Amino acid sequence: MNGETVPQQQLDYILEAARLAPSSSGLQPYRIFVIKNGEKLEKLKEFVFEESPFNQGQITDCSHLLVWAAWDRYSDQRLEDVLYKTAKERGLPENSSDAYKTRLLEKYETLGKEWQENHCSKQAHISFGLAIAAAAEQKVDATPMEGFDNLKMDEFLGLDKLGLKSVVILPIGYRDESNDWLVKLKKWRTTKNEFAVQVD
Amino acid sequence: MNGETVPQQQLDYILEAARLAPSSSGLQPYRIFVIKNGEKLEKLKEFVFEESPFNQGQITDCSHLLVWAAWDRYSDQRLEDVLYKTAKERGLPENSSDAYKTRLLEKYETLGKEWQENHCSKQAHISFGLAIAAAAEQKVDATPMEGFDNLKMDEFLGLDKLGLKSVVILPIGYRDESNDWLVKLKKWRTTKNEFAVQVD
Repeated sequence: MNGETVPQQQLDYILEAARLAPSSSGLQPYRIFVIKNGEKLEKLKEFVFEESPFNQGQITDCSHLLVWAAWDRYSDQRLEDVLYKTAKERGLPENSSDAYKTRLLEKYETLGKEWQENHCSKQAHISFGLAIAAAAEQKVDATPMEGFDNLKMDEFLGLDKLGLKSVVILPIGYRDESNDWLVKLKKWRTTKNEFAVQVD
Repeated sequence: MNGETVPQQQLDYILEAARLAPSSSGLQPYRIFVIKNGEKLEKLKEFVFEESPFNQGQITDCSHLLVWAAWDRYSDQRLEDVLYKTAKERGLPENSSDAYKTRLLEKYETLGKEWQENHCSKQAHISFGLAIAAAAEQKVDATPMEGFDNLKMDEFLGLDKLGLKSVVILPIGYRDESNDWLVKLKKWRTTKNEFAVQVD
């Protein structure tokens, strides 16, 4: 990327699309961390796996790095926070979803800690998709990435102390056409007929 | 929903957004099954969990039901299919990504079958997010859902025989304002400041 800064208005648009994403039971079990500081980005680049021959330069050449951090598990407090605020917003008694909450927690408990972690991460991926769409709409370039050392990222951003786990990252900015080895490669996708199957 | 049919052009636009979604290593480890047939939808409704007091009517009142089905695991054949086709499209030798393929397969093998299943499902969730954005753009209503009996869905659609697992579904169509208990409820989301955290 060319180092140019994405205007605040466009950044806000992308974050808002991510925020409005649907999630299971509306719990939004994830947060986004926004990093702009050059020194922090230099450090963060060390956690990103080297796959390209070009040293993952987008981490430091981007305008902002967005990090999706999912809840490490569901909890009574986390569900209560969302359900009570939703009820309040809708003018309903705060505890009107208590039975629903209990049912969800029982289900999550049965499915276990690892299932919960994956489930929260999956919800974050929906939001990630919406942010990617919003960036494209705003003509902002974005590089979706998941190949990084999650534990180091968590520690560096202090996510572990918040009960969060980094799951995907999105450098946003503007492409540097002349130095981008990937942008000129033809895009390939599974063909339409193979991808979307009509069931008669 | 009101039973009206989404025009083919808009359906295609939504499916195309889902098809163009980014995925880990570009593997697109999922397919979409498109169901329109009323009898099939009636049957499928039986697999959807009852959470609302209105019998999940959107499954049969929708125009089309889209079912994201993720690969149940990675395999040499599946990776080869994508990587060879991509290489061909780019005018490169078919086997130019063989070392990369081997590296990916070794990694996936180490991480295990359940990890692979979750990983494929996460990629499907990104595509799901892009389809939801595309539907909104086309003024088509969509109800993202994950509460259904996956095994019954897989069996009914014959996904198990294809090594696929249903992960999320999206009825698309047009809202029936007068009979929608949810559309009039105020939407609540985690506040901006709490959702997106600026790291200085």
